[in-house]
Amino acid sequence: MKRLFMFIGCLAIFASGFGQQALGQRPKVKSPVVNEDGTVTFNFFGPAAQEVSVTGDFEEIHPVTLSMTKQDNGLWTVTTKPLNPELYSYSLLVDGQRFIDPANSYVNRDISTLSNIFIVTKDKDDKGHLYQVNDVPHGTLSQVWYDSPKLGQQRRMTVYLPAAYDGKKRFPVMYLLHGHGGDETAWGDLGRTSQIMDNLIAEGKTVPMIVVMPNGNPTCNAAPGWWHEGMYTPDGNAFNERGAKATMEESFLDIVNYVDSHYQTIAKRQARAVTGLSMGGGHTFGISRLYPDMFDYYGLLSAAARIKKDDAAFDGQMARLFASKPKLYWIAIGKEDFLMKMNDELRQYLNEHGYQYEYYENDGGHLWRNWRIYLTMFAQKLFHDL
Amino acid sequence: MKRLFMFIGCLAIFASGFGQQALGQRPKVKSPVVNEDGTVTFNFFGPAAQEVSVTGDFEEIHPVTLSMTKQDNGLWTVTTKPLNPELYSYSLLVDGQRFIDPANSYVNRDISTLSNIFIVTKDKDDKGHLYQVNDVPHGTLSQVWYDSPKLGQQRRMTVYLPAAYDGKKRFPVMYLLHGHGGDETAWGDLGRTSQIMDNLIAEGKTVPMIVVMPNGNPTCNAAPGWWHEGMYTPDGNAFNERGAKATMEESFLDIVNYVDSHYQTIAKRQARAVTGLSMGGGHTFGISRLYPDMFDYYGLLSAAARIKKDDAAFDGQMARLFASKPKLYWIAIGKEDFLMKMNDELRQYLNEHGYQYEYYENDGGHLWRNWRIYLTMFAQKLFHDL
Repeated sequence: MKRLFMFIGCLAIFASGFGQQALGQRPKVKSPVVNEDGTVTFNFFGPAAQEVSVTGDFEEIHPVTLSMTKQDNGLWTVTTKPLNPELYSYSLLVDGQRFIDPANSYVNRDISTLSNIFIVTKDKDDKGHLYQVNDVPHGTLSQVWYDSPKLGQQRRMTVYLPAAYDGKKRFPVMYLLHGHGGDETAWGDLGRTSQIMDNLIAEGKTVPMIVVMPNGNPTCNAAPGWWHEGMYTPDGNAFNERGAKATMEESFLDIVNYVDSHYQTIAKRQARAVTGLSMGGGHTFGISRLYPDMFDYYGLLSAAARIKKDDAAFDGQMARLFASKPKLYWIAIGKEDFLMKMNDELRQYLNEHGYQYEYYENDGGHLWRNWRIYLTMFAQKLFHDL
Repeated sequence: MKRLFMFIGCLAIFASGFGQQALGQRPKVKSPVVNEDGTVTFNFFGPAAQEVSVTGDFEEIHPVTLSMTKQDNGLWTVTTKPLNPELYSYSLLVDGQRFIDPANSYVNRDISTLSNIFIVTKDKDDKGHLYQVNDVPHGTLSQVWYDSPKLGQQRRMTVYLPAAYDGKKRFPVMYLLHGHGGDETAWGDLGRTSQIMDNLIAEGKTVPMIVVMPNGNPTCNAAPGWWHEGMYTPDGNAFNERGAKATMEESFLDIVNYVDSHYQTIAKRQARAVTGLSMGGGHTFGISRLYPDMFDYYGLLSAAARIKKDDAAFDGQMARLFASKPKLYWIAIGKEDFLMKMNDELRQYLNEHGYQYEYYENDGGHLWRNWRIYLTMFAQKLFHDL
């Protein structure tokens, strides 16, 4: 942990804090500091501030806001109780306004909101260790533009190639779909996919595989700022399926075709998995019914997977899917997830029809904290008989 | 411009601003707003704040700080004079403390400092247009891990493949090196390399090429947060050459060998260029002398390129380099650059020895604003006779 949180040289070494640009000031404090006992200290230098607090996901479900205390020198500080190993998100509240911690340049974007991140880890078997970058062979992460004839677009996706990928050996593929408001960067950044996959593969806990993270919003080409719509403020609703030439599910073959023709894949159902969170779980649900012979592994993570009682084709699609005997149909959700009722109804339907599935329920809600756990579990269930 | 700065749906549409995480608040204002006349309005909601200003690189050389005015509803606002087409950086100063604008999720990191960015463009021939993402074919950007036997490390670099790259056709390669405190993300993020290259190629202004952006710090493997040192605060001096097994220049063959063996390159000097800014210009200077037969194009951008008067090998290296008749030895620097004297001495040396070079001098200093211009110019000078 000491090595991980080596906050070096925060005092001004450069004459300016803006690198070569000299526009700003270097932070005068170290923040956050992960202490040996797992507590975390936040520091903020603000002599003129009246009230400062830190708000973060320090507990399992609900955000926690901790008041910071001002010292005579203008330094505000607070230390948490010992935190469990995890990737945490937080921000500062300064006189009522939410800001990024100016001393921490590590941030994630969720829709239009930036938050700082840090990792707590205690030993090599915990989640913090799994989510951090360790001294193991690393895969390649690429932002790839592919052609989608169905959507009439050039579109961007993120592709993880395992360290063993050499352009000759062939690998299985996991398709990993984001939720509402997300994009092709979500699983890599918020989901820590490359770190989790690098670490699981290095530990021999999962088979080396290609992971494909497409953009699930059919009316936009790429993540905010990465396509010709410019630097708009994403609101999560602007680029949904309204007005699209096809749905995500209908255009999904374009992605599989591109991946199979541009990478050394094992292009058969035994070597293909598809999984997604929330809206992406809904996409997975739809894809499973549209292409019942394409995948052997399905993962519905906090899935927006609604049974289509008014769709005459639905029962037949489900029957055909399960007649094909997929190796895994996995449903995972947290006890406090607002989609629990929808998932209960899905499981009831599966039970009534005698369709085989696995179910995992844990604490917590509709959160990245759970989706990282589900990715970790799902990845270990795949491709063992290849 | 209207399309580019379509700040949509900033008012709370989601119940929470933290996407699925419900940790924060959505920004209540739009900021920045690029107006039709090229002025830019910044807005910040801070009823409790006493003094708010915006500081940015709105003028050619020196940062500008503009005081914001508070309205009765707690909204602070200021509008710039009309700005020239450019990619701008800024941050807010709230009661003396520097913050990211909470309404703008577009940021760049320079060493340990995050700054917000926005683009001003007026027409399709200006710099703003060149730096933004347009509706043109896009290349692939990859973060690749390669083996460096010389440094005894797995190391990370960024590779741009042009849209025309199909795994069959071969392309020339530009090696693009960052400066002190930078890393393999610098040219892509601060330098807008993929946008510049996509746009220049689409306009037929440059030849499609592979661009390789390695990490020039031999004692670290990758950018902060992307290797096993964890989420340290970069200070620009921590991972320089002290204690490294070899210098950047000495380990450079590992990079060229990896690129030539993993990509469809034209592996000969007529199809290789190397260029870098500041420290990376110094690396280019060193590489040119160590491997005089490897490149036909050299670019020294605001280069830390010191004549080694006390190095007995120096004169011979330079003589050998220029005897090989490189097609381009290009020196570019701004009138206010603090390395001007060093570059004057280099040019004097080249003049005295009758070595052919091209020289470009413009306004401004040691700034990304200039390095984006130099990249744009250099890329257009390459590989025309392939």
